[in-house]
Amino acid sequence: MAARGDHHIVIIGAGFGGLEAARNLAKGAVRITVIDRRNHHLFQPLLYQAATASLALSEIAWPIRSLLRGYDNVTTLLGSVTGVDAAGKAVLLEDGRAIPYDTLILATGARHAYFGHDEWEPHAPGLKTLEDATTIRRRILSAFERAEWQDDAAERRRLLTFAIIGAGPTGVELAGTIAELAHETLRRDFRNIDTREARVVLVEAGPRILAGFTEDLSTYAERALTRLGVEVRTGHAVSQCDAAGITLGDEVLPAATILWAAGVAASPAAEWLQVPADRAGRVLVAPDLSVPGFPDIFAVGDTAHVPLGEGKIVPGIAPAAKQEGRYVAGVIKARLDGKPVPKPFTYRNDGNLATIGKRAAIVDLGWIKLKGRLAWWTWGIAHVYFLIGLRNRLTVALSWLWIYSTGQRSARLITQASAEDGRSG
Amino acid sequence: MAARGDHHIVIIGAGFGGLEAARNLAKGAVRITVIDRRNHHLFQPLLYQAATASLALSEIAWPIRSLLRGYDNVTTLLGSVTGVDAAGKAVLLEDGRAIPYDTLILATGARHAYFGHDEWEPHAPGLKTLEDATTIRRRILSAFERAEWQDDAAERRRLLTFAIIGAGPTGVELAGTIAELAHETLRRDFRNIDTREARVVLVEAGPRILAGFTEDLSTYAERALTRLGVEVRTGHAVSQCDAAGITLGDEVLPAATILWAAGVAASPAAEWLQVPADRAGRVLVAPDLSVPGFPDIFAVGDTAHVPLGEGKIVPGIAPAAKQEGRYVAGVIKARLDGKPVPKPFTYRNDGNLATIGKRAAIVDLGWIKLKGRLAWWTWGIAHVYFLIGLRNRLTVALSWLWIYSTGQRSARLITQASAEDGRSG
Repeated sequence: MAARGDHHIVIIGAGFGGLEAARNLAKGAVRITVIDRRNHHLFQPLLYQAATASLALSEIAWPIRSLLRGYDNVTTLLGSVTGVDAAGKAVLLEDGRAIPYDTLILATGARHAYFGHDEWEPHAPGLKTLEDATTIRRRILSAFERAEWQDDAAERRRLLTFAIIGAGPTGVELAGTIAELAHETLRRDFRNIDTREARVVLVEAGPRILAGFTEDLSTYAERALTRLGVEVRTGHAVSQCDAAGITLGDEVLPAATILWAAGVAASPAAEWLQVPADRAGRVLVAPDLSVPGFPDIFAVGDTAHVPLGEGKIVPGIAPAAKQEGRYVAGVIKARLDGKPVPKPFTYRNDGNLATIGKRAAIVDLGWIKLKGRLAWWTWGIAHVYFLIGLRNRLTVALSWLWIYSTGQRSARLITQASAEDGRSG
Repeated sequence: MAARGDHHIVIIGAGFGGLEAARNLAKGAVRITVIDRRNHHLFQPLLYQAATASLALSEIAWPIRSLLRGYDNVTTLLGSVTGVDAAGKAVLLEDGRAIPYDTLILATGARHAYFGHDEWEPHAPGLKTLEDATTIRRRILSAFERAEWQDDAAERRRLLTFAIIGAGPTGVELAGTIAELAHETLRRDFRNIDTREARVVLVEAGPRILAGFTEDLSTYAERALTRLGVEVRTGHAVSQCDAAGITLGDEVLPAATILWAAGVAASPAAEWLQVPADRAGRVLVAPDLSVPGFPDIFAVGDTAHVPLGEGKIVPGIAPAAKQEGRYVAGVIKARLDGKPVPKPFTYRNDGNLATIGKRAAIVDLGWIKLKGRLAWWTWGIAHVYFLIGLRNRLTVALSWLWIYSTGQRSARLITQASAEDGRSG
């Protein structure tokens, strides 16, 4: 292995896992290059709020460069990775460049997946990027605008029907917030429609919503959603999804706005290395999170399949990705220092949170379970705390206090594609 | 003329002029429909700050609907106007609908114009919409990202050269802020380039910058720009503009980022009615701002050519548009009430402001001229005051204090076109 100062660590992806690894390695005498397709780190847990006009994009995303500014041995490369040359130890970029590495960390994240129904994507966008959030925000707000001027009653009903597919945290949070938009935020803004007549339908194939939580908490969450006016349809699998709406079994549900929160698939990292992966494409990593057969390559976050026992795996949430990033940094530092390698990675469950609208939430910290307003405040304070930078904490807290007290949302913008795409006028 | 309650006033465009007209007419016993291509009113004077990563889009734009929420006799229509059937007294929409009117107000605004060089637009985007701001922000930030990884010195210099064409307030404000980005905000974020080596070139065909101001103020502004590191090139007309850069006379200036702030043209309102217009397409209105030959149609803001004497016309700025909107509302109310029509419109110059970066500005209130920090604070307080809504005043003030004290900008996001355009991934 090269002398420490020359040791070049390449991290693909500046999500929670990649960023945590970079920060923990940065103090060492190594060179680090963080490669990301985007210039910003995204605070995924609040992305649904950008998609529902509650927060501005810049309140939940920060330039990777400025997050890593303090570390002179770390630099950022804005580029799209197309493969890894494991033999030549180089990362291959779309533009033809090859970035050599001594150690590689795959923190490439996941995209939403349609389980063999990719033709559904144009009709049912998922929520993973700021662009996704902009698209979903535009679709939700445009549906109300079009309904306001629609004379045909059936079409108006279709325009005011919002179907969210998948009742994990994202689906539940989207459904709850859209219901609040319709019943509170937009209520007094329209003249020809009553936005409170909007139907928000949350469809879940499984027997209950928020399956990651205990049964009593998901029962509470379902009641809270129903109180907000959301129709919860558990045990219903979507069999069809098109411009007209969705089909559940033999029931056709006309809906102008369909949102996909039903599942994700990992990035193609496993294909790059031709290594075994699970159904969702996650790399089956070794106990030290390295990729079997490639001791100098590690995988973290949504890229890694980490068993928890009882057929469970480490969940694809921010705290898990951070723990894995920190652990891998420790393994690499130990190797470079010639110290004994740490014990295999073990996941510490810091708790599980989900919000239902702006007044209810469920929190499972293991030793204590919370629901209702107290849980909501716990959720809110925790998320403000985890936001990066005092300024964002202030503005997000202000935005939330504003929504909480006035019911109004500040980011109700319908923006089209950028002028470069010839769609602005 | 129909009985008052039935009288339907259609306002095309919810900019400063249209919105002001709507607000002043809303109290009367009339029906009002505000038609706009976008769902938001845009605070144009601060758009350059969204384009330079200083403010979030949602800090300078608000849903038209919520701005007019308080008036039950006002509704909003999100739609694209393609023409006016003056004989049939109806506004024609892209989707084929015809919206009948009794009185029509044209407040359709302007777009940037390339004076017969439309082929320059893809290379030199102008700044009129939120989408324009997103495009410009992406281009500015991407240029630094690409320069960081460019080995060829000449190409790196080209990537770090920013040419702004046109030295009116927008051009000056863009140049000053880009210089601050390079010299302060981004300085410590890059490893391979020194962002302070960036060249910001402000090109003006006329003899001096900010020609709308007195000579001493524009001289001060030029000195302030130079101090920020901006190269001011007055008396230079751009003869060519392409992907490589711009040409000034026989000098070729390689520049990866070219911004157009050189001129605007009015919307096609004059063509819709086939009425006389000036070179920039502004309708030559009667003294009461009605359109000659169409007593029930008025034009305000950038749509109207209003002479000031001495060959001057009312400037295309927010206060002028507001005064015209308020005046037209008065004329229409007087007509409906059978009262004598007000005197011809006269423009009251409330003053002229421009900023140079975050520490200098020039303010000409007629009775007093200010420059430097005091002028900057005057400018800042005035603009915060004119922002709509307490919440926006708070967040924008916070953003500015943050930039002022830390030099950091919060909206440094490179976002691509929306997922719907298949460019997100």
